[in-house]
Amino acid sequence: MWELTKQDVEDLATGAAILGTGGGGDPYLGKLMALSVLEKGMKINVIPPEEVPDDALIIPSAAMGTPTVLIEKISKGDEVLHAFNRLKKIFGREVFATMPLEAGGVNSINPLTVGAKCGIPIVDADGMGRAFPELQMTTFHVNGIPSTPMTLADEKGNVVIIDAVDNVWAEKLARVVTVRFGGTAWISLYPMTGKDVKRAGVPKTLSLARDIGRSIRLARAEKSDPIEAILKITHGYRLFEGKIVDVQRRIVSGFARGEASIEGTGKYGDSRLVLQFQNENLVAIRDGEVICSVPDLISVLDIDTGFPITTEYLRYGYRVAVIGMPSNEKWRTEKALKVVGPRYFGYEIDYVPIEKRARRKD
Amino acid sequence: MWELTKQDVEDLATGAAILGTGGGGDPYLGKLMALSVLEKGMKINVIPPEEVPDDALIIPSAAMGTPTVLIEKISKGDEVLHAFNRLKKIFGREVFATMPLEAGGVNSINPLTVGAKCGIPIVDADGMGRAFPELQMTTFHVNGIPSTPMTLADEKGNVVIIDAVDNVWAEKLARVVTVRFGGTAWISLYPMTGKDVKRAGVPKTLSLARDIGRSIRLARAEKSDPIEAILKITHGYRLFEGKIVDVQRRIVSGFARGEASIEGTGKYGDSRLVLQFQNENLVAIRDGEVICSVPDLISVLDIDTGFPITTEYLRYGYRVAVIGMPSNEKWRTEKALKVVGPRYFGYEIDYVPIEKRARRKD
Repeated sequence: MWELTKQDVEDLATGAAILGTGGGGDPYLGKLMALSVLEKGMKINVIPPEEVPDDALIIPSAAMGTPTVLIEKISKGDEVLHAFNRLKKIFGREVFATMPLEAGGVNSINPLTVGAKCGIPIVDADGMGRAFPELQMTTFHVNGIPSTPMTLADEKGNVVIIDAVDNVWAEKLARVVTVRFGGTAWISLYPMTGKDVKRAGVPKTLSLARDIGRSIRLARAEKSDPIEAILKITHGYRLFEGKIVDVQRRIVSGFARGEASIEGTGKYGDSRLVLQFQNENLVAIRDGEVICSVPDLISVLDIDTGFPITTEYLRYGYRVAVIGMPSNEKWRTEKALKVVGPRYFGYEIDYVPIEKRARRKD
Repeated sequence: MWELTKQDVEDLATGAAILGTGGGGDPYLGKLMALSVLEKGMKINVIPPEEVPDDALIIPSAAMGTPTVLIEKISKGDEVLHAFNRLKKIFGREVFATMPLEAGGVNSINPLTVGAKCGIPIVDADGMGRAFPELQMTTFHVNGIPSTPMTLADEKGNVVIIDAVDNVWAEKLARVVTVRFGGTAWISLYPMTGKDVKRAGVPKTLSLARDIGRSIRLARAEKSDPIEAILKITHGYRLFEGKIVDVQRRIVSGFARGEASIEGTGKYGDSRLVLQFQNENLVAIRDGEVICSVPDLISVLDIDTGFPITTEYLRYGYRVAVIGMPSNEKWRTEKALKVVGPRYFGYEIDYVPIEKRARRKD
């Protein structure tokens, strides 16, 4: 078990935005909440999954909704606990720890506040190893863990509990409730045992996010290339560099969909990259050819600072680097690809691991 | 306490369709379910509100959704219990009785099946004395009773529990869940005490529905006018007679909205009546003048048999009588009219009790 410092929280938020692959919401507000918790003297303790007892009850906590709305709706602070406490009450037994649902974006930070306020540790694992737009898109789901009973709370005090026949129905019902709440819900779901976490989670993703953030910070201090530092830690690839020339986005059924066009610079001077996203970046197409797709991670970084740019902040004129990172192996089975592969999102292409695509290029 | 016979169930279903004022769903399926329960040897016991102990727990049960969908989705039988049993479990104590939420349509019949299957009586009262399209449109709400915790179940096995900050939020959240379920939900809500029932309910509406149905049956057997028999029991007024010449309807946000035009016959030969509805009949306009409006009851009857015609069955060519009936006095306060008066439904008119409107005419 290790205790998060303020610096760790800062680093973790930076790394989480990169693992968020453009979605998962801006970690900025989550970070402010986590920092204020530390300033009040509460502790944020992170526990490695292997130290969690097999029979312990773990309740992940998260926010759900459209990031574009999420960043405009400031949490009053304790809503994040309403959903968690209600689900805890349903079980009527001690909750050993909370955990992120996704390692990307605001959802890697929210559980820190929940854990600190409840005096329980946060498991260093999650159900995605990145961010994804739907609740059944988790390695928990692929490994047979029910997402319900699930609780949703809004900032007004409304609470909804869902007990669905499967995780796809849980997503459908939670989505309409979230839209009705006004676009954002605080949620607790996928209650599971310590054994489940070890079997079905993506391990060490909080520490990975912190390490990514730290490496960017150190690279900048040393005036070395922060993007190289990220690629080293994530085993990632530099996919493109250029200037954003067009961004289109619209809200469809509670999701922010769109695409960005990037005109190449430097060694990519004759090329163009089209990035398609639905909350998260899904597919990168260079000169008409797919060069990276879900479930592998695609992130857009400020070319100078290495800081990630989420899809809601993509703007004309930004100079960016686009990187690709391999997804966790739990996402690469046939069963998992049915849940998060490119075909699920409407692309008529097969998933090819980024390592293989990159090798073809070299 | 009295036990319902099969004949009572038949009569109650007919009367409920008249109190349903065109909405509340066709009681036919509910009737089949109630009759099959009697055929299996179960008992349907109705208890007058004054016999309910003050501290007893009462849980009303109902169906929610668009009648047009409701009549096409056959219940497998036990869904009606899922929502009820889940709400019962939340309270963890004995439920003394169930009760209709509304006295009109399928919702006056559904609780009979719930009561029989659970071996508990059904209180002879409801929260509307008629049918209305939204959950906060109850005398319970007007008298300060929370509608939540509320449970919703579908035929697939999904269950949703809502704990809302107020009854309007409960309606909003339950509505999107019902639409997502596919258009229909089985619900339990407004858990209350026996004291609440006596204070806030509309009493004796099950027996009123049965008496209306019986009077139609007896009038037809005696070859007397069934419509006169209905008016006598309900203290109602004959508003119009004629032939339906146009019906328009559309589904808007889960509600069946529309209007029917009726060309007068007999003494109404030179007149035309326009009937506007949203699930239920809301306003009757004769030759441009409002002659009856919510919360008073407007029903369309087959001119020969006196049988009610719900809004989803209104068709070109039907020869009908339109009647108006006074609403319960609990609906006639300023506070209540804000919830169910014509202005709530978008009509820029004041509510005038039907007795006063009728007196002006005579």
